[in-house]
This record gives sequence, C-alpha cells and structure tokens, in this order.
Amino acid sequence: MKSFRKELWFDIPGRRAFINITDDVEAALRESGVREGLLLVNAMHITASVFINDDESGLHHDYEQWLEKLAPHEPVSGYRHNRTGEDNADAHMKRQIMGREVVVAITGGKLDFGPWEQIFYGEFDGGRRKRALIKIIGE
Amino acid sequence: MKSFRKELWFDIPGRRAFINITDDVEAALRESGVREGLLLVNAMHITASVFINDDESGLHHDYEQWLEKLAPHEPVSGYRHNRTGEDNADAHMKRQIMGREVVVAITGGKLDFGPWEQIFYGEFDGGRRKRALIKIIGE
Amino acid sequence: MKSFRKELWFDIPGRRAFINITDDVEAALRESGVREGLLLVNAMHITASVFINDDESGLHHDYEQWLEKLAPHEPVSGYRHNRTGEDNADAHMKRQIMGREVVVAITGGKLDFGPWEQIFYGEFDGGRRKRALIKIIGE
Repeated sequence: MKSFRKELWFDIPGRRAFINITDDVEAALRESGVREGLLLVNAMHITASVFINDDESGLHHDYEQWLEKLAPHEPVSGYRHNRTGEDNADAHMKRQIMGREVVVAITGGKLDFGPWEQIFYGEFDGGRRKRALIKIIGE
Repeated sequence: MKSFRKELWFDIPGRRAFINITDDVEAALRESGVREGLLLVNAMHITASVFINDDESGLHHDYEQWLEKLAPHEPVSGYRHNRTGEDNADAHMKRQIMGREVVVAITGGKLDFGPWEQIFYGEFDGGRRKRALIKIIGE
Repeated sequence: MKSFRKELWFDIPGRRAFINITDDVEAALRESGVREGLLLVNAMHITASVFINDDESGLHHDYEQWLEKLAPHEPVSGYRHNRTGEDNADAHMKRQIMGREVVVAITGGKLDFGPWEQIFYGEFDGGRRKRALIKIIGE
C-alpha cells in the first residue's frame, strides 16, 4: 500500500471565498503515483470547508447568500462563541453545512469524477494563512 | 490491496426522490470479495446526494418538506445560477445539506452497520439518467 | 494492509449532547498500530452525528440553538415520521446537517490534524445506549 500527503495553503484576503482546487488535487494524485485507491481532502481549520460542486460563479454567489441566511454573521453578539473575542461563530456553522472533507475514488490514476464535479476550498473566516490536507492511499 | 468499482444508474421521472440502494451496495461488496476495508458511495452529479438514514416513508416526506423550506425551488429567478438557463439552483443547496457521499466500514465481508442504517440515493433534479459510484478498497 | 475496528458506547441521559471523543479515537489508533492510512469514525445510529469542530462550550451552545432553529423539535406533530410513535424526527434532520461520519488521515501513527480539530459525538435523541464505530485501514 502506498500513501501520500500534501498540504495546500491559502491566504484569502476577505472573509469568505470559494477556491477551485481540482487542479492542485490532480497534481498531488499524479505525484503520488497511486492508480487505485481513495483520496481524502479536508480543511485543517474548523471555519473552512472542502466540498464538491459546480464551478459556476452564479451558484457561488447563491451559496454565499444562502449560507448567510441560514447562519448570519451579524449580529456578532448573537453567538456565545463570540464572547471569547472571536467574531467567527457563523463560520463554524457554515462549515458544517458545506462539510469538512471529501473522499474521492481513484481509478486508473485519475479522480473518478462525474461530468461536473470540481473540488473547492470554502473559506468562511479568511484574512490569515490556512490550509487543506490531501491524503492518498492505494496502489 | 484489492480495489473494485461499480456504477449505479438512475432515471427518476420526477424532480425529487429518495431511493434505497443498500441491496445494490451489498451486492457490489459481495462481488468485490473484499472482507476488510472501506467502501465509498458518492453521487457523480452535483444535484444529487448519497446519505445514510432511515427507510421510513414519513421521514422521507419530512425531509422533502424540510429541504424545500431551507432551500426553496421557487422563485426560480431568486437564484443567480438559474440565469444560466437552469432551474436547479435549489438542488445544489439541498445536496450540500444531505451530503455527496458516505464512507462505510467493511468488516467480515459485510457493511458494518448499526441497526437502522440504510443507504439512499437522493435525487433533487431528476428527469434524466444520473449515476452513483461505488468504490471499494481493502483485502 | 492492516485493519482495526472498535466501538465507542454512549448513554447520554438527556436528549442532546456533544461529547469530545478525540482521546478515545487516538487510543484506538495507537492500539491498531497503523502508521499510514485512513480512519473512519461514524455514528452507528441515524439520530446522531460524528463531526470535527472546536471544543468550546460557547460554540456548542450556539450549535444547539442554531440546530433547534433549523430543525425544531416542537411541534412534535409537525413531522409525519413522529406518527410512527417516535418524537425524534428533528434528530434525523439535525444529524444530516452535522453529518454521520468523519474520515481522518493517519500520518506517522497520529491523527493528521490542524491546530483546533477535535472529534465529537453529537447526540440528538439520547436516553438510551448508542454507539459510534472506529474503522482504521493502512499499514
């Protein structure tokens, strides 16, 4: 069994963004040499997500508005977590809806994807360096 | 290490449905011959889910109503994604709540499940052929 | 390839709670002897979650309030599932938002975690014995 590990680093200037990391994940897979196996990509921070969906800017706008409706940033004082000096309680909620991680099948050395699947890093509390982990196991 | 791959195809006539695929996944597991390992099942489309919950029709009715409340289909024009000519932006939201994939332990050649766990394909934008992927690795 | 399996049992007296199980999962990992691989932790019940987030009591209070807003327990009669004699339909919804499972990378014999990642069992319908499953594969 082979295993491979790589970190992807991000420094999003604003509070929130969706970054397409599919090419980076494919590059890591090629580097690993794994042909058959499973690939995990997870946010290493608890106010960020890794998820699979469509690379369409209108949809990302809709996600932004929808998540803000389900878990609004304001009022900051409405969350007990923010009494710790943080203002990111909403980011911990948004991350739960969008998910921490994805697990992807590796077949014939490639991400075994349907026609529109793309992998995104979802930042909900940016303004500092954060990272995602790629872990690959297989043969 | 063994690996095994199988697609399940669906053609849901309406827009939304929940399909119990547990028997199909168990059949794939038997076919794989894997006794110890991990099994991934994921929707290969970004407006569908694979999730584990109860096979109870009342609950599925409740999920349908609840998801429609959290991410309503109408008004279609309320989503920027739908300006692309689609009317399925809500399906991309519903899929995030219900999830893309499940990872299941394989022990002694069986799905290592609690008493009520069943695997479902959740369709949120039907009317065409779509598929889920089963990938198994182990020994 | 090595594989390892362990159950964690819970008996939460109230209806809902979040229990930090990181130490138990690390103990299982040590017991497995696996140095490189993947670790799955999942709720074996469909009204409970396993998720990764922050061990901060204010945040857990916020999660509790937020989940109750998105999927209220009352009115119990508002859910068709509850006509079966259950009163836990809301718990099936809360579990979908928080997720069934986490998959964690194992690197150098340790959980390959970011600075704040902790694993929780989320109970949404307590008052009886329930369990989570740890499954580890690797080398």
